[in-house]
Amino acid sequence: MAVYTDITEDELSRFLAEYDAGSLMSYKGIAEGVENSNFLLHTTKAPYILTLYEKRVDPADLPFFLGLMQHLADRGLSCPLPVARKDGAMLGALAGRPAALISFLEGMWLRKPAADHCRQVGAALARMHVAGEGFAITRQNALSVSGWRPLWEKAEDRADEVEAGLQDEISAELAHLEGHWPTDLPSGVIHADLFPDNVFFLGDHLSGLIDFYFACNDFLAYDLSVCLNAWCFEKDGAYNITKGMALVEGYQSVRPLSATEAEALPLLCRGSALRFFLTRFYDWIMTPPGAMVTKKDPKEYLRKLRFHQAVSSAAEYGLKPQVTA
Amino acid sequence: MAVYTDITEDELSRFLAEYDAGSLMSYKGIAEGVENSNFLLHTTKAPYILTLYEKRVDPADLPFFLGLMQHLADRGLSCPLPVARKDGAMLGALAGRPAALISFLEGMWLRKPAADHCRQVGAALARMHVAGEGFAITRQNALSVSGWRPLWEKAEDRADEVEAGLQDEISAELAHLEGHWPTDLPSGVIHADLFPDNVFFLGDHLSGLIDFYFACNDFLAYDLSVCLNAWCFEKDGAYNITKGMALVEGYQSVRPLSATEAEALPLLCRGSALRFFLTRFYDWIMTPPGAMVTKKDPKEYLRKLRFHQAVSSAAEYGLKPQVTA
Repeated sequence: MAVYTDITEDELSRFLAEYDAGSLMSYKGIAEGVENSNFLLHTTKAPYILTLYEKRVDPADLPFFLGLMQHLADRGLSCPLPVARKDGAMLGALAGRPAALISFLEGMWLRKPAADHCRQVGAALARMHVAGEGFAITRQNALSVSGWRPLWEKAEDRADEVEAGLQDEISAELAHLEGHWPTDLPSGVIHADLFPDNVFFLGDHLSGLIDFYFACNDFLAYDLSVCLNAWCFEKDGAYNITKGMALVEGYQSVRPLSATEAEALPLLCRGSALRFFLTRFYDWIMTPPGAMVTKKDPKEYLRKLRFHQAVSSAAEYGLKPQVTA
Repeated sequence: MAVYTDITEDELSRFLAEYDAGSLMSYKGIAEGVENSNFLLHTTKAPYILTLYEKRVDPADLPFFLGLMQHLADRGLSCPLPVARKDGAMLGALAGRPAALISFLEGMWLRKPAADHCRQVGAALARMHVAGEGFAITRQNALSVSGWRPLWEKAEDRADEVEAGLQDEISAELAHLEGHWPTDLPSGVIHADLFPDNVFFLGDHLSGLIDFYFACNDFLAYDLSVCLNAWCFEKDGAYNITKGMALVEGYQSVRPLSATEAEALPLLCRGSALRFFLTRFYDWIMTPPGAMVTKKDPKEYLRKLRFHQAVSSAAEYGLKPQVTA
């Protein structure tokens, strides 16, 4: 939640003149996205989102992110669509930053999703995986298994501040995941961050997916494990199997999991729980007291990790046995 | 710049059901207003602003603020219009706070206003003063001359941290203003905070005034002095007489100043410069280091105050001699 960069009406009007997007009527900095500055624009033509890419985003990744949104939208997925400039470019510059004009997607994210919403999320995730086929650019997942140890080593000596014995526990988990991480699962473009605030609903119907700025190439089933972590636990830490079953059924209604993927699911869930534990833990120890950021509690993902460690098969997540390829 | 309160789609939809305002399509917390939480809503009917009144606003003042916007809009002033609920009430409740749904005013505030913009601001201020006549509720100006000493006494012992000798200088100024403050100038409803971020333009045309949450009853010419301070100084501290002349001419094109008002203008400018110095100075010393607020430099208004102390007549602001009542 932040607006990092203020822009003047003058420079914004000059920026917009490069597009066939009408004349500017208003713009408001919005409290959305933590990596970039976002503005909601009204022009004589339509509402738009204007995104200024701040320094945490590598400009070399922007063709992947913007191209992916275009690729997915072209294949019928409901997601924000970057608007091309009159000269064909997808990216402009504003206030010294790379900037993109993006279609505005109506909808709201659900603070309290129910099982039927999870079913729709699962189906949308699978549609995204299918729609992502054939996208020409690739981007490695910097936050997959090979990225965890470097992050952990920067912070592990402070782990016992969170809980006594935690340094040993996480080190052992990391070694286990490194030793057992699958190498041969179906891969493709994944969202990698499909939390509730990145899925919009209108009434009870899913209206679109947003925020593709963690998207990358990785195992498709890993993306499903991120969603199981993000959507299917209650505030009290309990896993909600009704939601889990709905999420997985929704996913499989579009793209059935292979037997190998189903078998790998508990391990993938441990991995994605560790991934979010690690970034939250790192931010938690690196953020000075009194800073402008809401720190997310790393313990939430520690509890989820421990839950997954005790899971012996995907059936415990709600996956029903089925005939697979 | 802040969103203090998050709201869920559920509670917002229930809130909107009390209005004839269409169905909710999206809502975004916007980085606008420092006293309240503001959201930009899109419904199937129109865009709206939703304001949740946070604890710095006295709920007893809300009928004044909301009633005033209605009164001014009814008389043709372009300003946000509170939407009445189906039961006729102007105020609802959301997330445990008083909340109002308000029409969305297109337009942008100017980061670099020119003299012609100042002329339009002057005329709009005068139109507001005229349109405010007959408004039935009154609200005392808590930040006029009688409110300055209590504020000063809470903070004066730290004034020399800003500049050596400042405690004596401001104490003397305060005593001077208390001793010479006018008592018989034309009064009415004033905006009291008409800074550039509260005036919207579409292209080069003023499209409306916003943020009436400091509005109150006071001398009309005092409001003009606030605008001279807010609009007619350059970033380097210099007074821009071209802008001042335009602002005052714009004002007088709608409501000519009386001779007494013109004569009082330098003193009123000293008063409004002291008023903004005092609140900024108070916030500056009371805000802990590292807090989430951008502190405004109190010295800006100290420099303006000193400028006004050297002014001997309103002609120095750009006021042309004219026949007055």
